[in-house]
Amino acid sequence: MTDFNDWMHAIQSRTEVVLERLLPSGQVVPQRLHQAMRYVVLGGGKRVRALLAHAAGELCDADPARVDAAAAAVELIHAYSLVHDDLPCMDDDDLRRGKPSCHKQFDDATALLVGDALQSLAFQALAQPGLLQDAACQLTMSHLLAQASGSRGMAGGQAIDLASVGLDLTQMELEFMHIHKTGALIRAAALLGAHCGQTHNVSRLAALDHYAKSIGLAFQVVDDILDSEADTATLGKTAGKDAAQNKPTYVTILGPERAKRLAQELHDSALEQLVPFGAQALRLKQLAAFITQRQF
Amino acid sequence: MTDFNDWMHAIQSRTEVVLERLLPSGQVVPQRLHQAMRYVVLGGGKRVRALLAHAAGELCDADPARVDAAAAAVELIHAYSLVHDDLPCMDDDDLRRGKPSCHKQFDDATALLVGDALQSLAFQALAQPGLLQDAACQLTMSHLLAQASGSRGMAGGQAIDLASVGLDLTQMELEFMHIHKTGALIRAAALLGAHCGQTHNVSRLAALDHYAKSIGLAFQVVDDILDSEADTATLGKTAGKDAAQNKPTYVTILGPERAKRLAQELHDSALEQLVPFGAQALRLKQLAAFITQRQF
Repeated sequence: MTDFNDWMHAIQSRTEVVLERLLPSGQVVPQRLHQAMRYVVLGGGKRVRALLAHAAGELCDADPARVDAAAAAVELIHAYSLVHDDLPCMDDDDLRRGKPSCHKQFDDATALLVGDALQSLAFQALAQPGLLQDAACQLTMSHLLAQASGSRGMAGGQAIDLASVGLDLTQMELEFMHIHKTGALIRAAALLGAHCGQTHNVSRLAALDHYAKSIGLAFQVVDDILDSEADTATLGKTAGKDAAQNKPTYVTILGPERAKRLAQELHDSALEQLVPFGAQALRLKQLAAFITQRQF
Repeated sequence: MTDFNDWMHAIQSRTEVVLERLLPSGQVVPQRLHQAMRYVVLGGGKRVRALLAHAAGELCDADPARVDAAAAAVELIHAYSLVHDDLPCMDDDDLRRGKPSCHKQFDDATALLVGDALQSLAFQALAQPGLLQDAACQLTMSHLLAQASGSRGMAGGQAIDLASVGLDLTQMELEFMHIHKTGALIRAAALLGAHCGQTHNVSRLAALDHYAKSIGLAFQVVDDILDSEADTATLGKTAGKDAAQNKPTYVTILGPERAKRLAQELHDSALEQLVPFGAQALRLKQLAAFITQRQF
């Protein structure tokens, strides 16, 4: 899988460059806000959403230079959600990607504004004049990202998550929460990448969406398994937190063995969607394996 | 000025209807989040930004039905900023528009997510397919709103405001803060309204922008005067707060008399920009008077 690793690192590097350019310099007023925005966005993260956008772009013959802005926009939304999620009134987490979380390194008010400003920057990146030749398609992308981020997507998932603390959820209820909280943005990443391509074949988009939905859930199941098994140093964020906060996880509901089996089933279901596309789906296939098999 | 009052109430009513339709029902999951979003957006506020968008739309022969989404988007951004601004880690205000602020009525986490989701909804409203026939122009509007909301606009102004507590600002520094904190969104409201029209004459847009900049500052100066003179019941938000928090205001820097003179000068400067447009700028003229002379 050397080839995949090379591709992954190349995408991670180019995403870093694009984000670096989008973010105002730490010398621009208000300096502290811009420094904090750069602190949370740059130099960390696996960039799974950017990888998905580019892999979906390859499926649809998209020019990677056009996918860059979409990939960056999704990463900006993801980064903002982590900053707000770590705040004391939410998950109250001191550690993120192995560093002090934003409100610990700066302060609560700055972290609040960092999240707010990163969300604006994401939509600014997607609305760049001339990003795509087809402005209507670019608008569709903006609409998709807004829906995925809002109250019927990611922010709604956070609300459901908060309301579920201490409750005995069924597997279906847990799935409903994750489909919103993390799944919506992961699906948006794939669809945005595809929209940067030439063809918008409806059945192709539906298969890709199905793939992304399965992969998004697999990602969460694996997260729960890692969270229950790893220690804080390896994870780069506080381990065992969900259990400590009495939050339901796939491991608490299914047990570790059935959770691992579920991750594999979701992986296989994602791959099934890719069969009609043959070799053009190579990166999406590799990414599914990477997401399901990661160990860190 | 009966005619202006009729027009104002008509715009306020239609904006309420558009916002009501954009916001998910309080019965849709997650119910509490959607109920809180409706609580903060509906049934209150002067809708100054919606009025400005429609008045600028009239200047550019825009169909009011097309301006509606832009006006709603700007009001959603404004509403989100108030919710986050009232949070304990920011201004810690218990009262807004005569009601308990969002985090008092619900809780801090819900208020955080309400703000986040309202920002997404604003960009969703602006990216509606087919809002304008010219998709590229619609993208420009989305780009304008994102810039005005972000770290070099409104969110940046909030950061400058936070950093200025307890400092002796000059009038210029105070102006710099307000141009970002409230001015950026007020200018965006006017420009978005204009973009819904047929003609995008550069000098017309520049004059409108200059008008909006002056009116935005006048709005803030009048706010500071009212805040220093009115009581909490009349104001619908906590009065005398800036002074109590040791925040610089136009009244603390200039004194009440010079602050009133400044508001008048800004009003006159705004009106000068409208001279070339004659009767088509009627609503913008009336709005300038309304903003400068309001007493509540």
